[in-house]
Amino acid sequence: MDLEHIDTPAVVIDLDRVDANLAAAQRYFDRHSLALRPHVKTHKLPGLAHRQLALGAIGITAQKISEAAVMVAAGIGDVLLSYPIVGEAKLEPLARLVRSARALAVALDNDVSLSLVGRAAAAAERTLDVLIEFESGRQRTGILEPAEALALARAVVGHPWLRLRGFMTYPLGPGAGDWVAEARGLLAREGIEAPVFSGGGTPGMWRAHETAGLTEFRPGTYVYHDRATVGAGAASLEDCALCVHVTVISAPERGRAVIDAGSKTFTSDRIDPAVGAGYGHVLEYPAAVITALSEEHGVVDVSRCELPPRVGERLRVVPNHVCPVSNLVDDVIAQRGGRIEAIWPVWARGATR
Amino acid sequence: MDLEHIDTPAVVIDLDRVDANLAAAQRYFDRHSLALRPHVKTHKLPGLAHRQLALGAIGITAQKISEAAVMVAAGIGDVLLSYPIVGEAKLEPLARLVRSARALAVALDNDVSLSLVGRAAAAAERTLDVLIEFESGRQRTGILEPAEALALARAVVGHPWLRLRGFMTYPLGPGAGDWVAEARGLLAREGIEAPVFSGGGTPGMWRAHETAGLTEFRPGTYVYHDRATVGAGAASLEDCALCVHVTVISAPERGRAVIDAGSKTFTSDRIDPAVGAGYGHVLEYPAAVITALSEEHGVVDVSRCELPPRVGERLRVVPNHVCPVSNLVDDVIAQRGGRIEAIWPVWARGATR
Repeated sequence: MDLEHIDTPAVVIDLDRVDANLAAAQRYFDRHSLALRPHVKTHKLPGLAHRQLALGAIGITAQKISEAAVMVAAGIGDVLLSYPIVGEAKLEPLARLVRSARALAVALDNDVSLSLVGRAAAAAERTLDVLIEFESGRQRTGILEPAEALALARAVVGHPWLRLRGFMTYPLGPGAGDWVAEARGLLAREGIEAPVFSGGGTPGMWRAHETAGLTEFRPGTYVYHDRATVGAGAASLEDCALCVHVTVISAPERGRAVIDAGSKTFTSDRIDPAVGAGYGHVLEYPAAVITALSEEHGVVDVSRCELPPRVGERLRVVPNHVCPVSNLVDDVIAQRGGRIEAIWPVWARGATR
Repeated sequence: MDLEHIDTPAVVIDLDRVDANLAAAQRYFDRHSLALRPHVKTHKLPGLAHRQLALGAIGITAQKISEAAVMVAAGIGDVLLSYPIVGEAKLEPLARLVRSARALAVALDNDVSLSLVGRAAAAAERTLDVLIEFESGRQRTGILEPAEALALARAVVGHPWLRLRGFMTYPLGPGAGDWVAEARGLLAREGIEAPVFSGGGTPGMWRAHETAGLTEFRPGTYVYHDRATVGAGAASLEDCALCVHVTVISAPERGRAVIDAGSKTFTSDRIDPAVGAGYGHVLEYPAAVITALSEEHGVVDVSRCELPPRVGERLRVVPNHVCPVSNLVDDVIAQRGGRIEAIWPVWARGATR
């Protein structure tokens, strides 16, 4: 079976580009003496996580316990859970993860989460590392004031099974360096050390070294890149390593083609209008715009294409946002030089808990 | 394990409401002597498909071969594939489906698809029914002019393994009745019969009887309903049978709560601003607005809630659009009267081919 004959829609990754993306990032972080702790949410593939570690990553980042558990089961030892764990139902799964990981850290921003992770560590009878999450521009999770870090830090330090490691934020806003400096100052007065300062986000990756005091970075999308990271200037279209292969299934009138992939494949994630239009970039027809998605249909405006695609023609589409695309498929086809090298089950797909 | 202790995020369906929704629709279609052929894309559960058939549905509708194959494997005999099958890679899977289904029909709007389904039927040595898809307002697939139906109909009639059954459209635009009347007239002059006229779409379901000549209807969402079908006037919030149970994981400042479900659970599907705001309706806090989603975070504006939710509190959210939510989870929890009756694997999840 070659690439031109695989059933569509299919998610295909280019291993040469993956390797190049991983190597370029590792070189950058090595050059700046920053630890790289890739977020696996983009690929959800233990095989690529191991590749990242082999190149020099110090560990991985995962968002949910179930996602981390897949990676630990696949032999990954060092994991940061960059997400506040809350809810009694998570006590047992977290305790199991603490027991099974070689090194586990969790990020949190409130005492409800702190209490739960403390109980999980105690149940596992293993020390669990804690990072305090702070706000640096995204306005989702993360404490706002350095003074709030003090109360959390005291509680961590006073817990027999928790160890304070430092601070985490997402992405890495302009004030993050000053914030951490101030918080470290407050903690130092009480003799509390917080050596780790972790930032994230592929769009700002190449400027990570500009933030004073930063010690590690957690990019995810850089493994594949997508229209959004290209739009942010973090990559070029030629770096994009993941394409969705689709087929034109209908062309009811001049200027309109319909492809066999919709929101169940691309998601409904949009793109900054300054970067591009529609729900993906069609490599063979750069002037085409995917204007509307149903779950299984993609409607493509091909009116600006000199010779529009015909029914039956196969196209390759670079998605707006790759991470949720990985989450929608049971497997990805890994190719190198146009030949299929492997078909990988996306083991951490659907790991939302 | 009771509902209050299940791990979150979790997709939970209320079987009493499901039963009521299915019964109400069946009563309506029976009253108007219209055949009901539910689209399984909403629930993706063979168990609910069998419930729909037991109530009187004449068969089911599926969008893709792989989705239909799940249902046929689970004992469903009569399937309409409401989607143009195109691509050489689909020949074998379609031939297998033709052999395994008791009665299979496919919809198509072009001769490339017609050629493929004809070859699949020939390979299976079984007659395959064909519906001609026409445009009635959605502007995705479907021929535009009744005259185009004639060429397709002739090709179907002339094929030894294909049988013309009629017409299909989605949803069921205002001109659909006239369109089919004209097309049937053209075909009748050549002695070609096209008895079936199939429309779809839950939002317009209760007005299906107003379209002259219609013989069957293919609603999907009516099994669960959602904010969109409530907004369209097809149901009330009390009919909504699917909720996402979530937990508040953070509340970094007054007016902001963060829940443990984002676009990997709700999808990024939006809602008509005339109907509501944000990415879902929070049952316990109707004044709350889910303003932003990351993959795993939902940011909730709770500034208009008198007493905002606390970290650790559990909430139930009615999604904007339920169908892609079913597609994101490996299982749904089926409850009745607050007690868990079953946990069903979503067998047709991810069936995009």
